[in-house]
Amino acid sequence: MWVPQQLPEIAGPLQKAGLKLTAEQLADLTGDPMGAVVALGGCTASFVSPQGLVVTNHHCAYGAIQLNSTAEKNLIKDGFNPATIADEVSAGPTARIYVLDDIKDVTSEARAAIAGAKDALGRAKALDAFEKKLVAECEAEPGFRCRFYSFSGGNTYRLFKNLEIKDVRLAYAPPGSVGKFGGDIDNWMWPRHTGDFSFYRAYVGKDGKPAAFSKDNVPYQPKHWLKFADQELGAGDFVMVAGYPGSTNRYALASEFDNTAAWTYPTVARHYEALIDLVQKAGKSNPDIAVKYASVMAGWNNTSKNYEGQLEGFKRIDAAGQKHAEEAAVLKWLKGQGSKGKAALDAHAKLIALGEQAKATRDRDLIFRQFSMSGAIGAATSMYRLSIENEKPNAERESGYQERDLPTLEGTMKQMERRYVPAMDRQLQAYWLGEYVKLPAAQRVAAVDTWLGGNDSAAINRALDKLAGTQLGNTEERLKWLKADRKAFEASNDPAIQYAVTVMPTLLKLEQERKVREGESLLARPTYLQAVADYKKSQGEFVYPDANLSLRITFGNVMGYEPKDGVSYTPFTTLEGVVAKETGADPFDSPKALIDAVKAKRYGGLEDKRIGSVPVNYLSDLDITGGNSGSPVLDAHGKLVGLAFDGNWESVSSNWVFDPKMTRMIAVDGRYLRWIMQEVYPSPRLLEELNVSKK
Amino acid sequence: MWVPQQLPEIAGPLQKAGLKLTAEQLADLTGDPMGAVVALGGCTASFVSPQGLVVTNHHCAYGAIQLNSTAEKNLIKDGFNPATIADEVSAGPTARIYVLDDIKDVTSEARAAIAGAKDALGRAKALDAFEKKLVAECEAEPGFRCRFYSFSGGNTYRLFKNLEIKDVRLAYAPPGSVGKFGGDIDNWMWPRHTGDFSFYRAYVGKDGKPAAFSKDNVPYQPKHWLKFADQELGAGDFVMVAGYPGSTNRYALASEFDNTAAWTYPTVARHYEALIDLVQKAGKSNPDIAVKYASVMAGWNNTSKNYEGQLEGFKRIDAAGQKHAEEAAVLKWLKGQGSKGKAALDAHAKLIALGEQAKATRDRDLIFRQFSMSGAIGAATSMYRLSIENEKPNAERESGYQERDLPTLEGTMKQMERRYVPAMDRQLQAYWLGEYVKLPAAQRVAAVDTWLGGNDSAAINRALDKLAGTQLGNTEERLKWLKADRKAFEASNDPAIQYAVTVMPTLLKLEQERKVREGESLLARPTYLQAVADYKKSQGEFVYPDANLSLRITFGNVMGYEPKDGVSYTPFTTLEGVVAKETGADPFDSPKALIDAVKAKRYGGLEDKRIGSVPVNYLSDLDITGGNSGSPVLDAHGKLVGLAFDGNWESVSSNWVFDPKMTRMIAVDGRYLRWIMQEVYPSPRLLEELNVSKK
Repeated sequence: MWVPQQLPEIAGPLQKAGLKLTAEQLADLTGDPMGAVVALGGCTASFVSPQGLVVTNHHCAYGAIQLNSTAEKNLIKDGFNPATIADEVSAGPTARIYVLDDIKDVTSEARAAIAGAKDALGRAKALDAFEKKLVAECEAEPGFRCRFYSFSGGNTYRLFKNLEIKDVRLAYAPPGSVGKFGGDIDNWMWPRHTGDFSFYRAYVGKDGKPAAFSKDNVPYQPKHWLKFADQELGAGDFVMVAGYPGSTNRYALASEFDNTAAWTYPTVARHYEALIDLVQKAGKSNPDIAVKYASVMAGWNNTSKNYEGQLEGFKRIDAAGQKHAEEAAVLKWLKGQGSKGKAALDAHAKLIALGEQAKATRDRDLIFRQFSMSGAIGAATSMYRLSIENEKPNAERESGYQERDLPTLEGTMKQMERRYVPAMDRQLQAYWLGEYVKLPAAQRVAAVDTWLGGNDSAAINRALDKLAGTQLGNTEERLKWLKADRKAFEASNDPAIQYAVTVMPTLLKLEQERKVREGESLLARPTYLQAVADYKKSQGEFVYPDANLSLRITFGNVMGYEPKDGVSYTPFTTLEGVVAKETGADPFDSPKALIDAVKAKRYGGLEDKRIGSVPVNYLSDLDITGGNSGSPVLDAHGKLVGLAFDGNWESVSSNWVFDPKMTRMIAVDGRYLRWIMQEVYPSPRLLEELNVSKK
Repeated sequence: MWVPQQLPEIAGPLQKAGLKLTAEQLADLTGDPMGAVVALGGCTASFVSPQGLVVTNHHCAYGAIQLNSTAEKNLIKDGFNPATIADEVSAGPTARIYVLDDIKDVTSEARAAIAGAKDALGRAKALDAFEKKLVAECEAEPGFRCRFYSFSGGNTYRLFKNLEIKDVRLAYAPPGSVGKFGGDIDNWMWPRHTGDFSFYRAYVGKDGKPAAFSKDNVPYQPKHWLKFADQELGAGDFVMVAGYPGSTNRYALASEFDNTAAWTYPTVARHYEALIDLVQKAGKSNPDIAVKYASVMAGWNNTSKNYEGQLEGFKRIDAAGQKHAEEAAVLKWLKGQGSKGKAALDAHAKLIALGEQAKATRDRDLIFRQFSMSGAIGAATSMYRLSIENEKPNAERESGYQERDLPTLEGTMKQMERRYVPAMDRQLQAYWLGEYVKLPAAQRVAAVDTWLGGNDSAAINRALDKLAGTQLGNTEERLKWLKADRKAFEASNDPAIQYAVTVMPTLLKLEQERKVREGESLLARPTYLQAVADYKKSQGEFVYPDANLSLRITFGNVMGYEPKDGVSYTPFTTLEGVVAKETGADPFDSPKALIDAVKAKRYGGLEDKRIGSVPVNYLSDLDITGGNSGSPVLDAHGKLVGLAFDGNWESVSSNWVFDPKMTRMIAVDGRYLRWIMQEVYPSPRLLEELNVSKK
């Protein structure tokens, strides 16, 4: 996961792996091909036509597809294939496309700001104020969105400036039985046969500047867009991915790893599985719940399965043993350096102590937060918080509640009408309250105890009955409260708002405590991580910072792996494998047109001679993680050969300890994408725009 | 599955596949190496030392291992590794080793005998009489056992003359957690890690002639024995198996296939699964039942899993479609031949009609037979039948009840004490009676109805209560009845014997009806199958007869396969794979010594450099079936490289329709066998005898 600034450093390995572009061409982040790569916020995508057509994963566009679905016109199931560009629909008020404009190193300025503070809280606040000022200045130019990134716990700080496209349209989605083929059963699995792709289109105002959705807007014309490969991709070939991976923890302390493996993952997975169960049961008799909670369910499923896979992987590669051994080696190396190593050793001790503090209230922090921040209560809490922040000057407001955040907040409040059913919300509240009353005395929240007025199911039922009276399920009501002032909230008799007002002092106190720990960490973490980097370099290892949602490059080769003794996974799956999985029932119910085409061997000129069919998905040894979804996969010539959409089951533990033998990226082959749009759910219009019309 | 007589015909393909021996050397069935291959009756084995040491599968020696096991000294679990040759124990009274002496073609004599008969029953009886006379003449020479084989429904008849070794000793068995590693879970599966081998030793009288077990006997000195390979076996290498495959049905009619796929397999599998359930439940609270029914349970499990696999395979390769298309092609070809094809077309019609007859009472035939021929009732039925046959001159007695069969019958009656628990037998009787009363009126047996005296559970319980009074659970009692005459049976008040006497006329009548159908088939089947062979030859195909327990040769190469899109099975598994499957619980509970040795990479000089470990099991494209178990696998130089012990899951349907793409033989590698005997459960004595002592 190399940062772009490392491209000169890794030019040698890139050429060796097979790259035919020069390192200079690749290093031009606003040139061709890198300038075509964009962020969606949580996913990656790329421009693929001069008319602003963007390709990403089906699961990245899932929210937009869901927002445009109704019981009568179910785009999730049927797909979306508009006849003309004018029929393309809005991806929703919160959909964004971020086009990179500039990256600026601001490390020395950020460090200076921190150095001026007198204590931990001061440091956290100083960095926050610095970030806000920097971002505000950057965003003073209309149409831009800026983001401040900390690398390696604060070793480097960079500011990314992005053009923020706000009018995003859904241009094409295959039927769910293609785009989500295999569903949660195949999620993280190989062999895989998922057509995980969809198309957006970027729109701007007539003046070419970003603008909110309007019928009068025009397609955005990007400077660069990717072209489909003109050479066949095969086993062993060079591939490269540029994208926005969210988060890895490869430099976490061994004790932080232990807490995650022993508590966080099993606990969160257990809670999510319980919630999944509740929604599934309710959804069976109420299709409205099934549709409105589909997106959050997909998230829970993904997370709990991911955590399980990580735990399995930790065991397989003895991650704990590796982490502890590595940390012991670093500490030994530091001790060997006498007084020179002392600062890093002290920093290490400090980080251990901070971890112990957080651990003491981990159950409360999870449960109290989940109850207070979801559904109708979550809407009340965040809108009341906004009213509090609104009393301060904009620059001093908490991140997420500044003027620049208002459109997102408003979008979320609007969108809730598609993602909220009162009866289901009550069940979820009941679940978390049930968990809350099991907390030990030391982890209880006095304000919640008072509000609840008891520790038994009768008290819980009384609280739920009271909460059921909230008006916040009504969109107009929410939009009204979004503009209300603090006093209005504190005078409200809406039960969800009353809860928010009751617990807000505690939420703020806990936030303050977290900030103090952050402030401590702001000095300790970079000091220790610099020592880790120095140690690794002394061992001849390349070092890159943990993923942090900023642009990264990863490269390698198309290759399978051996999941267990006697079994080898081949790098490509084929059309015939899709049909072999057919059961006629979701998630293995391919469209009839697909089955017919495969049976008739109607490959449409897209078959690879070496495998005798059209490739569907493929494996490569690239290093990606969540956030990379939708990333374009480029071949040695910088041409598009597919989209990253998943990692294999054995890779998920690589978030903490990288396992090069077993970690594989799963991509949907560009030829499968074209085949679907050509033979199954045809869009000659888009194929022509992509310059890959059927010959 | 080439018959030895075809070796000259297939010399070319053998050399092409990589054989380094001459076809002449291979064709010498009593020379080296083929003369070392022996039959066990149901399994294959081979001599591996000049002192009569024989190697076969653990599952072939399972009965002998079980017979020597007690609750205190459990050889199934712990293995058997006697310190000296004198400590080797008897494999039981029914254990046999058959050493091939001669094969004689008797087709013209057999056909002459059939031609002399005036009707179908006459033909069946004539062939039976011919067989008995031939076998009796052959066995007139003491120490020999002769067997008459029909090939291709009677196209060819051959007489095999074998030295019959009756004193068989168990010389070595690995612990069950090696020999049966993976148990029923891994049965038919890949990747596989089973150390499925054991050693017998052949003993003869001091005069060198076969003799029943005696302390005074001496080890048999075979003329030929196999030597372990001195070259490493790898992917793509030539391998060959000689053995005694039991039965295939590749030339069955399409309608016979249909009856099997639609009725026999699903029905028998359902019954066996019900019986397995009963014994498993009973075995949990009664370890005596668990031990005594282990062997029959293994059989039921194997069969029902095999049938399931065949049904799955039929679907995968559209076996029905293939069978019907092939038969249609043969019939079309015959019709095109005018009057020349008429005989074969008539024969085909006759076989169809015979199949329809059998189908009408298939449920009754299965259920009535199962109830009448198992447990205490089975003992009564077969001993009463013996007393009936004993009234005739020996030569006229039914096969299985002649003087030559007495030792086997006696062994079975003795052995029942290790395989019979009254409470369990009652439950199995209850099951079959429960099935019996569900039969439609047209399929009821009058004698059973009268005996049962009702159609409800009360009647069944009365019958079971009555049967519980049998004395046949007592070994001495059984051995006494084995010598009793017909009148004694008919006067007996033992309830099992009374049942046998009651139903015997029906059993004999059904047998007679079967023989009439056989007599019809004796003319029709060879006529039609000759036409099939002629048709295939006209298409340029090689033709070999269906397996019939006679010696066959199969050859090919070590190779994996692709079980599904995106997945490839590599040809070798390794030691590390054994440990990766470890759960600590049966059937994945390797001996500690094994786990320690693998973790310490103590390969003992037996590792293959190409795979970096000791190979455990391997795949090859050889064509085997039940009866081939224990067959030696020979390399290009005729040296021992392992033992065949299973087919893969996808191969089981090849019994009816051969699928070259998916059919693979699973063998235990000779190097794993040596590694176990060297590093895990050491027998330096036997390794020295095998001339492969650790260097």
